[in-house]
Amino acid sequence: MKLEEVLSEALRIVKPTKADESLLKNVVDRMKNILKEETSRVEGVLGISLEGSAAKNTWIKGREEADIFIHFDKNIPRDEMERKVIEIGFKAIERAGGKPRLMYADHPYVEGVINGVTVDVVACYDVEPLNWLSATDRTPYHTRYIIERLKPGQEDQVRLLKGFMTGCGVYGAEIKVRGFSGYLTELLVLNYGDFMNVIKNAANWRPPIVIDLEGYYRSTKEVLEMFRNQPLIVIDPVDMGRNVASAVSLTKLSEFILASKMFISNPSLNFFKPQIEKPAIKDLRSLSAGRNFLYILFKLEVERPPDVLWGELKKSEEGIRRALERLGFKVYRSGSWTDETELCLLILELDTLKLPNFTIHKGPPIHLNTVEDFIKKWSGKAIGPWVQGDRLYVLKKRDETDVVKLLKQELDFNRVAIAKGLTPLIRSAKIDHRVDRLIEYAADNPPMLSFINSFLKAKPPFIPD
Amino acid sequence: MKLEEVLSEALRIVKPTKADESLLKNVVDRMKNILKEETSRVEGVLGISLEGSAAKNTWIKGREEADIFIHFDKNIPRDEMERKVIEIGFKAIERAGGKPRLMYADHPYVEGVINGVTVDVVACYDVEPLNWLSATDRTPYHTRYIIERLKPGQEDQVRLLKGFMTGCGVYGAEIKVRGFSGYLTELLVLNYGDFMNVIKNAANWRPPIVIDLEGYYRSTKEVLEMFRNQPLIVIDPVDMGRNVASAVSLTKLSEFILASKMFISNPSLNFFKPQIEKPAIKDLRSLSAGRNFLYILFKLEVERPPDVLWGELKKSEEGIRRALERLGFKVYRSGSWTDETELCLLILELDTLKLPNFTIHKGPPIHLNTVEDFIKKWSGKAIGPWVQGDRLYVLKKRDETDVVKLLKQELDFNRVAIAKGLTPLIRSAKIDHRVDRLIEYAADNPPMLSFINSFLKAKPPFIPD
Repeated sequence: MKLEEVLSEALRIVKPTKADESLLKNVVDRMKNILKEETSRVEGVLGISLEGSAAKNTWIKGREEADIFIHFDKNIPRDEMERKVIEIGFKAIERAGGKPRLMYADHPYVEGVINGVTVDVVACYDVEPLNWLSATDRTPYHTRYIIERLKPGQEDQVRLLKGFMTGCGVYGAEIKVRGFSGYLTELLVLNYGDFMNVIKNAANWRPPIVIDLEGYYRSTKEVLEMFRNQPLIVIDPVDMGRNVASAVSLTKLSEFILASKMFISNPSLNFFKPQIEKPAIKDLRSLSAGRNFLYILFKLEVERPPDVLWGELKKSEEGIRRALERLGFKVYRSGSWTDETELCLLILELDTLKLPNFTIHKGPPIHLNTVEDFIKKWSGKAIGPWVQGDRLYVLKKRDETDVVKLLKQELDFNRVAIAKGLTPLIRSAKIDHRVDRLIEYAADNPPMLSFINSFLKAKPPFIPD
Repeated sequence: MKLEEVLSEALRIVKPTKADESLLKNVVDRMKNILKEETSRVEGVLGISLEGSAAKNTWIKGREEADIFIHFDKNIPRDEMERKVIEIGFKAIERAGGKPRLMYADHPYVEGVINGVTVDVVACYDVEPLNWLSATDRTPYHTRYIIERLKPGQEDQVRLLKGFMTGCGVYGAEIKVRGFSGYLTELLVLNYGDFMNVIKNAANWRPPIVIDLEGYYRSTKEVLEMFRNQPLIVIDPVDMGRNVASAVSLTKLSEFILASKMFISNPSLNFFKPQIEKPAIKDLRSLSAGRNFLYILFKLEVERPPDVLWGELKKSEEGIRRALERLGFKVYRSGSWTDETELCLLILELDTLKLPNFTIHKGPPIHLNTVEDFIKKWSGKAIGPWVQGDRLYVLKKRDETDVVKLLKQELDFNRVAIAKGLTPLIRSAKIDHRVDRLIEYAADNPPMLSFINSFLKAKPPFIPD
């Protein structure tokens, strides 16, 4: 397919219809009215506003979301504000016919689905720039900045970029993804003009990348000194001290660069369509043949906000990875999955499931006087010691070599840096290496099966089989 | 046992009796007379002299050796000198009732055993210091230097040091050992005064060590710049550009330091007595249980001088070690053995005998334009690629994982840096991992069995079980 065709087809996928638009507009108007009524006699509430992609006209089809902000006076204490937004949000979503749910990001907000549209009722303080009292106070300024600068037609360019990033698996600043936020895609389009120009530039990126739209800094060097160890730095036009892309991991940035290169070489609609395939059990079995996996499967007892849960999972995944490497395994890859309400899975691919019976242990250099203690210590307990170069070495026999038993031991002795909130669950989790049993277990859980499939395939969605 | 007792007992072991002395003296006198006769009408021969430990009165009991040098005029060409010393040496040893054997060090010499004494007939040029024409020209000056400086009684101190080093396995500058030469032990005694003072100083050595008896250099720094990467530097009193200890490996130096520390802590006659035990087959079996070995066993077709053979074995051992490490094995230790006439053995201890089925392969960083070639190259041929950090990775399936088959492949494809002279022999050698079969094979070969025992024990002779 030619590039022009791909882009016009892609736009049909990502651009809401008139009907979609009016549906969203109706929900927004209704919610705003309800919230105005609910807050009219609440002390400290200064106004109601629509923020986010709905306000900026940059949402993508099927991802209708209304972020409605309640603006508080800056003299209202934080806990009072939080209490009020929860109370008002619950009442308003119920009145609109939705089922309210308490959520947390930096502070609590209330979410509900009304006529298929996700509505978030969020609190912020009405403050001047740089006098931020809470993390959401910048949002109204972000909205205004984008609305004032996006030229007609650029909204659709943002939609193409969001659609591309979604299809490539790099869209979303949440911990689960560690990718690009909606605001970041808008700033990229503002900076480069249109979708294809973002892609062409990204294809040539070599991190670290610096984008400073308002020219707050004198040089790239100055920015890099300010924002160390961040692969992508996009200075927030409403707050020069903030990197809009701080959540973007090097891996996700690299995936976006790679996807951009590949899209230029071979434009295709596949980049905009996440491949949701229902893998066949026997394909999964043959895909896993001869490989070594270790998985940890457990159920939550208490629900928590997705970002909290994903943070715990990622931290635990990393801790287990490091523990296994310390024990002597090579961890080729690892991944986490959860249905975000109950079931959690950590999975790792390893070089082996069994360590060698013996391990080499380096002693002190010969010139130290501790060498004789070392010899006494290991006498009769190890093979050796022998001298090699300027050091002593022994071969120690391992008491345990099986990966499952070793990990269980490490967990029992509290030697694995897992998230506190998951510790008892992981300690009593199912820890196993038989991935065929896991596939069987997931047979009637399509999202889980799909995750296992993508973990076994070990490639981002935009790289074809 | 107290130190004094140990030393006097040790001296009884290492010091020749009057009978030993007169036996050696008789052989020396006889050989010198024969050689004088044989050379009286040979053009270019300037004289006959006794060199080495017999001349210096520092040989140890049971190691009687007569190094008899034929001094040539410096105008005699090298090839003529070599031809003559071979001819004369053969005739002289035959006349004395010995069986002459052609040997090589830096140049050819003739060896024979007469009344239990090893006699070497060696050629040198009569030159002034620093005008050396061949490697043996320094020897008469070494002999004279030591004879002139050793005080009465110090000969026995040298004998104690040689006995100690022999017992500890660090005596001998030949490639097989890479340890201390006789001349080096004499210089150490001259430098430190007596055996115990050598030991006390060595126990505190931290390499690199510099000894410059004649004070040729202004500072240690100057010496270290001249002799880089040498752990022990003993400036030759007859040639300031030469390190007498250049053959001493860091490992052997470290073993000597360690043995010195241990002797001071716990003086014992064991340090002077190499433990020659005949190990029981079943003990060897249990010692090897659960461990992973690989051995290469072959027979020579053409005999060569021991130093040449040991050089080939050590080079091949190192090459095989590096090849296995490149393949992904950990080589804990390795060793070589030969009976110096026919049978050769290389043996390695490994972490495992089988590599993981899959190996991780690092691709280019994402910012390079070769990433797309990498993806095409591995498409369908590997698991992945996936992005981690700024790079691509794939998991490659190994065609072969068995250590024996892998090493044979590498040898067939000429990818192992083994000694040229051994290449056909090692290619068609017995390569196996079943060490019990090796033990069985060696059952009626005590020196081989003893080597296998010490390799399995993996400790120097002076460290007790």
